Amino acid sequence: MKNPSRRRLLSVGAGLAALTSCSKKQEAPSALGAPMSPYGERSPREKSVRLTPPPDTKTPSTGASRTPLQDSYGIITPSALHFERHHSGIPDIDPAAHQLLIHGLVEQPLYYTVEDLKRFPSVTQIHFVECSGNGRTEYGNPAPTPQESHGLSSCSEWTGVPVKLLLAEAKLKPEAKWVIAEGADACRLTRSIPLDKLIDDAMIVYAQNGEPIRPAQGYPMRLFLPGWEGNTNIKWVHRLMAADGPSMTTHETAYYTDLLPNGKARQFSFELEAKSVITRPSGGQKLAFGPGQYEISGLAWSGRGKITRVEVSVDRGKTWKDAEMSQPAFSKAFTRFRLPWNWDGSATTLQSRCTDETGYLQPTADEMIEVRGRNFGYHNNSIKVWYIQADGSVSHVASA
Amino acid sequence: MKNPSRRRLLSVGAGLAALTSCSKKQEAPSALGAPMSPYGERSPREKSVRLTPPPDTKTPSTGASRTPLQDSYGIITPSALHFERHHSGIPDIDPAAHQLLIHGLVEQPLYYTVEDLKRFPSVTQIHFVECSGNGRTEYGNPAPTPQESHGLSSCSEWTGVPVKLLLAEAKLKPEAKWVIAEGADACRLTRSIPLDKLIDDAMIVYAQNGEPIRPAQGYPMRLFLPGWEGNTNIKWVHRLMAADGPSMTTHETAYYTDLLPNGKARQFSFELEAKSVITRPSGGQKLAFGPGQYEISGLAWSGRGKITRVEVSVDRGKTWKDAEMSQPAFSKAFTRFRLPWNWDGSATTLQSRCTDETGYLQPTADEMIEVRGRNFGYHNNSIKVWYIQADGSVSHVASA
Repeated sequence: MKNPSRRRLLSVGAGLAALTSCSKKQEAPSALGAPMSPYGERSPREKSVRLTPPPDTKTPSTGASRTPLQDSYGIITPSALHFERHHSGIPDIDPAAHQLLIHGLVEQPLYYTVEDLKRFPSVTQIHFVECSGNGRTEYGNPAPTPQESHGLSSCSEWTGVPVKLLLAEAKLKPEAKWVIAEGADACRLTRSIPLDKLIDDAMIVYAQNGEPIRPAQGYPMRLFLPGWEGNTNIKWVHRLMAADGPSMTTHETAYYTDLLPNGKARQFSFELEAKSVITRPSGGQKLAFGPGQYEISGLAWSGRGKITRVEVSVDRGKTWKDAEMSQPAFSKAFTRFRLPWNWDGSATTLQSRCTDETGYLQPTADEMIEVRGRNFGYHNNSIKVWYIQADGSVSHVASA
Repeated sequence: MKNPSRRRLLSVGAGLAALTSCSKKQEAPSALGAPMSPYGERSPREKSVRLTPPPDTKTPSTGASRTPLQDSYGIITPSALHFERHHSGIPDIDPAAHQLLIHGLVEQPLYYTVEDLKRFPSVTQIHFVECSGNGRTEYGNPAPTPQESHGLSSCSEWTGVPVKLLLAEAKLKPEAKWVIAEGADACRLTRSIPLDKLIDDAMIVYAQNGEPIRPAQGYPMRLFLPGWEGNTNIKWVHRLMAADGPSMTTHETAYYTDLLPNGKARQFSFELEAKSVITRPSGGQKLAFGPGQYEISGLAWSGRGKITRVEVSVDRGKTWKDAEMSQPAFSKAFTRFRLPWNWDGSATTLQSRCTDETGYLQPTADEMIEVRGRNFGYHNNSIKVWYIQADGSVSHVASA
């Protein structure tokens, strides 16, 4: 074998480069390995976890845990790593005793168990869920890792029944314009949803990534509103009440509103706007091989439809290159983007910006602040900048 | 609320029917629930598991575990429920010490660690993996559940690097026509792969469903050959040796060959042909609501490309209806199919047949036996028939 002890960088084809490293000895076991198991686990060598509140928190049932996006691959988030945002903890619900009540301005109030729902024509869709507070601290205090800055967003394959089929059974009265959705958690989290959304693409989902929806995501059923802020996707949903207007619940008045410079607040700002973040290399990681070839990889998503373009700048925003995007592009789902990058060893910044099918371009932080001021934190979808030091370490950049 | 104690079947819209059941009381907790966690679990109420060998087996490191397809949703198989087929158990491999050697008829032998591989342009694809022994006992002894008959097939989102990029780095010699791939398990499972496949769409995958590939699937890296029999997708791969012909290893001579009526055996029959199975309702389940509306749902896949059509018969094969298929259709991946069905309460059979983009139609068992005889068991992709009894219970049908 040639060159067994040195590292070498080759340039092949269209700028492709690869590393040969023959310095280590292969190790392979000679003893029989572990047997089959009923329900598998990941390798105990893998340590990537959600970022949870500190153990000494006095309110362990309210808060959030964040997906380790820096360790993500493809577009599916493992259910075990899907972000959480609970307001009164995860209830323990027996699916056999749980029912979804549809009532209010309907001709025929109805209950549905999970087994009832499975008799309806089902749908499966890959969609992200994102907390509208994702990126809330990015103004002036940008987080050092993508988990901290963007980890309140995850993407799964969801299976359930279209809400419009259930509403058709209950026969809405003409004056019904909104639906008040309530969860079965202890705080009975409640949001008002315009009827149009429920008729359009809303689902009651009972499965996630091929198995029953996880308790942290709403087991045994969750209201799913593709592309809308996470808080409206009521977990453990047990009630849909048709009404002629919104209920002005706590979570749409005291919270989840955007205070503007003129002192007024945006309310019912449901749709999540186009956002992207480079996940590798990202803050806390290192370009461990020195100058040479790397892959820049990240995630983009929009609550308004498909991502149609992702651009990456490796030169402090001077120039932008189109990244390759995973195919097919799913509507209201993560899109994985990738760009080969030959790092010359000098300090620089990396950033991405995306465009969705409505033509909307992800803004800079300065552009957002100019429009919305600094009083708000929800719905921050501004560009995230990573700083590459000459030693290869990656950190965040304090933005405007 | 109307009709609080009776069950009722409605017909709505285009034949849609739904059930109202107002007989139970809703239950919802009033106490705070469980807190966030670093790595989540499914509900302890969910019991669906892989079917493993009996606990008193004398060879626990060789055998298979089967995916519970009757409990599947969508097209993604949870990694914890992905089928297993091990020949010497699951090795415990340290990724930092594991390397992929590319050697033989190459100009430049090379080693790659997982971290090396991540510097290459990566790809993510949704693909099934199927053991060619899936359905092996279906002739004359059809299995009572889809887990037993078809559970050696699963589908995941895989991320890795195209093998062609690695081979380009190593610079194949002109006489290289095959590659011998070897795993790092104790038996050093080895298969010969034609070079064309490796250049076409083969990958070295290091991630599955958004996290590092599970130990049972080849952690830290696996050779992935989309659409080809599972055994060739070498797990824990640590060696690719370029050669001018196949090595005639144990697993391509003594096993994984198809003995034909003329006494000769088909060898290197890599491509898995189009197959489908109804997963719900299926053997072991029951139409618990009596006559009325149900959804027939199942999975179809082909090693030759996309599934273009799935037909379902609910009347003992007399007539066939086109099922709806999940969109988009992925090449060499599970396709979920669905058909609403109004059961009239009489005994009947349910069966599905699929067509792939090459125009190939899934055959009946009789058609397969006519061509291949009864001496073989691998690569059985014949139609699976479920029997519906008048009491709603579902069982299997003894085929030809």
